[in-house]
Amino acid sequence: MTETKDLLGRIEAILNGDRLAITRAITSVENERAGWDDLLSHLYSHTGRAYRIGITGPPGAGKSTMTQKLIAHYTAAGLRVAVIAVDPTSPFTGGAILGDRVRMQSESMKAGVFVRSMATRGSLGGLNTKAQDVADILDAAGFDIVIYETVGVGQSELDIAKAADSTVVVLVPESGDSIQAMKSGLMEIADLFVMNKSDREGADQAVAALKTILTFRITHADDEWVPDVVRAVATEGKGIDDVAAGIERHREYMLHVGLLETRRIARERSRVERITERLLHTTFWTPERLAAFEAALPALSSRTRSPLDVARQLTQERVGG
Amino acid sequence: MTETKDLLGRIEAILNGDRLAITRAITSVENERAGWDDLLSHLYSHTGRAYRIGITGPPGAGKSTMTQKLIAHYTAAGLRVAVIAVDPTSPFTGGAILGDRVRMQSESMKAGVFVRSMATRGSLGGLNTKAQDVADILDAAGFDIVIYETVGVGQSELDIAKAADSTVVVLVPESGDSIQAMKSGLMEIADLFVMNKSDREGADQAVAALKTILTFRITHADDEWVPDVVRAVATEGKGIDDVAAGIERHREYMLHVGLLETRRIARERSRVERITERLLHTTFWTPERLAAFEAALPALSSRTRSPLDVARQLTQERVGG
Repeated sequence: MTETKDLLGRIEAILNGDRLAITRAITSVENERAGWDDLLSHLYSHTGRAYRIGITGPPGAGKSTMTQKLIAHYTAAGLRVAVIAVDPTSPFTGGAILGDRVRMQSESMKAGVFVRSMATRGSLGGLNTKAQDVADILDAAGFDIVIYETVGVGQSELDIAKAADSTVVVLVPESGDSIQAMKSGLMEIADLFVMNKSDREGADQAVAALKTILTFRITHADDEWVPDVVRAVATEGKGIDDVAAGIERHREYMLHVGLLETRRIARERSRVERITERLLHTTFWTPERLAAFEAALPALSSRTRSPLDVARQLTQERVGG
Repeated sequence: MTETKDLLGRIEAILNGDRLAITRAITSVENERAGWDDLLSHLYSHTGRAYRIGITGPPGAGKSTMTQKLIAHYTAAGLRVAVIAVDPTSPFTGGAILGDRVRMQSESMKAGVFVRSMATRGSLGGLNTKAQDVADILDAAGFDIVIYETVGVGQSELDIAKAADSTVVVLVPESGDSIQAMKSGLMEIADLFVMNKSDREGADQAVAALKTILTFRITHADDEWVPDVVRAVATEGKGIDDVAAGIERHREYMLHVGLLETRRIARERSRVERITERLLHTTFWTPERLAAFEAALPALSSRTRSPLDVARQLTQERVGG
């Protein structure tokens, strides 16, 4: 009874935008502390109002500065903005990222702005799943905009960035950058490109090259959208309005063709699938079963038992036991 | 008893290199016909002698021609060569790929040469797993060299190519090609690069650019190997000896540092893991459970139930029923 009352109190505090309650909820979910799942389930019915923006691109493209400027842009328009800064290479959570990150944290002192860092190794259950859980908390807490900002372009970062309603890819004119973009699969996930530092030499050519590459882009079956390429100089605050307008244009397009809801439902569907697979995986790989696997390795090496034999034995023991 | 006798007869025929028996075994494994698993298990103890080479690279790089010439090279040295040509885009198996493929099929008329096409949609249980099963059959059948040749550079093709003892990446001097290579993750999996069509303009620069890129390559913890870059003109048979020598040099390196066995064990380990996950997945997603998932979708859309709720319910029903 006290527990339920406590949970309801926590939920109310989060819904009221209480910063401490939000921070505690995020930590609780990240570390899967007792009651984290009930908390999320209760908050879920209050989600769906925030617009989620993914910001990704190669290191050094100016994503953090861009995010800072977008925060300023949106707060000036009276909106509340939350940022989930994702760094899969860092072993720490909650403020582990230095440099730009520290500067951005200072934004979070402002009312209506909330910044949270997340790192892979500290988070249970997959960074992608957890980032979406955290976005749900912030969405329920009444933030109008939730930004996923990634440090680099690893697969898990891309997965998070593309779990947004609009995904922004930030590039710079340097020659190697479009190579990097293609290598990283950024082309496929972008709803909007920002050519940052576009006061540098080669910006015109880089924009032209990018547009050429985009003509070869294979569009998704349900999506005829061709990403805009917007120029910006984030450090000087140039082009930020254009970036925000580009995001808005994509949002309106999706609303117009009914794609926003389709995208969100597909996202929730795959969340269920991912969580299910993880639950299957974690309940399956008990210490006993891991030991059985290890015990079978010599037979595998000596080729007296085949991979299929070993896998079948492991899964059949499940049925038996 | 008759069944066992029949199985033993089939195994003996395969071990003797009987082409019809090999072909039937592959078809049986691809389509998971009755007894395919017993067959593979029995053959497994006879594997481990063939050297497995992966050949991959962007479309049009000349992989098929390169493979043909390597077949000729190895057969001239008295070796028996089998090729598994993988095309995940094709819905058909067994000779679905036209053009170069047809020409290569003619190689398979020669004694000591065996060519088999595999396609994704026709194969149960994942192309990667099946390609390795087929390689096991060919290995047991006494082929000295088993080549995995891919048509393109999709993820499943890369997974297959890197499941080899040595992975060869074929590129051409055209400017977009190194971009393509980086985009596709080819850099990470290559043990040897072949700059094919290197009589074309720009070959010197392309080789130099590739070598520069390679200096930035992050080596694996257990592997200090830096891939060679070999030049060839496959259509004219130029450089084929160098390609074979490059593969041999990599093989010797791995034997020298003990990496070949390490690699093979790691490969078999992940085969077990993959098969196990698939068995878990397929036994879990029964029609009843899929129906339960579909039934839960409206509640997910209306946000009255969270993804975690739905996933938990699905997996808990497993424990209960």
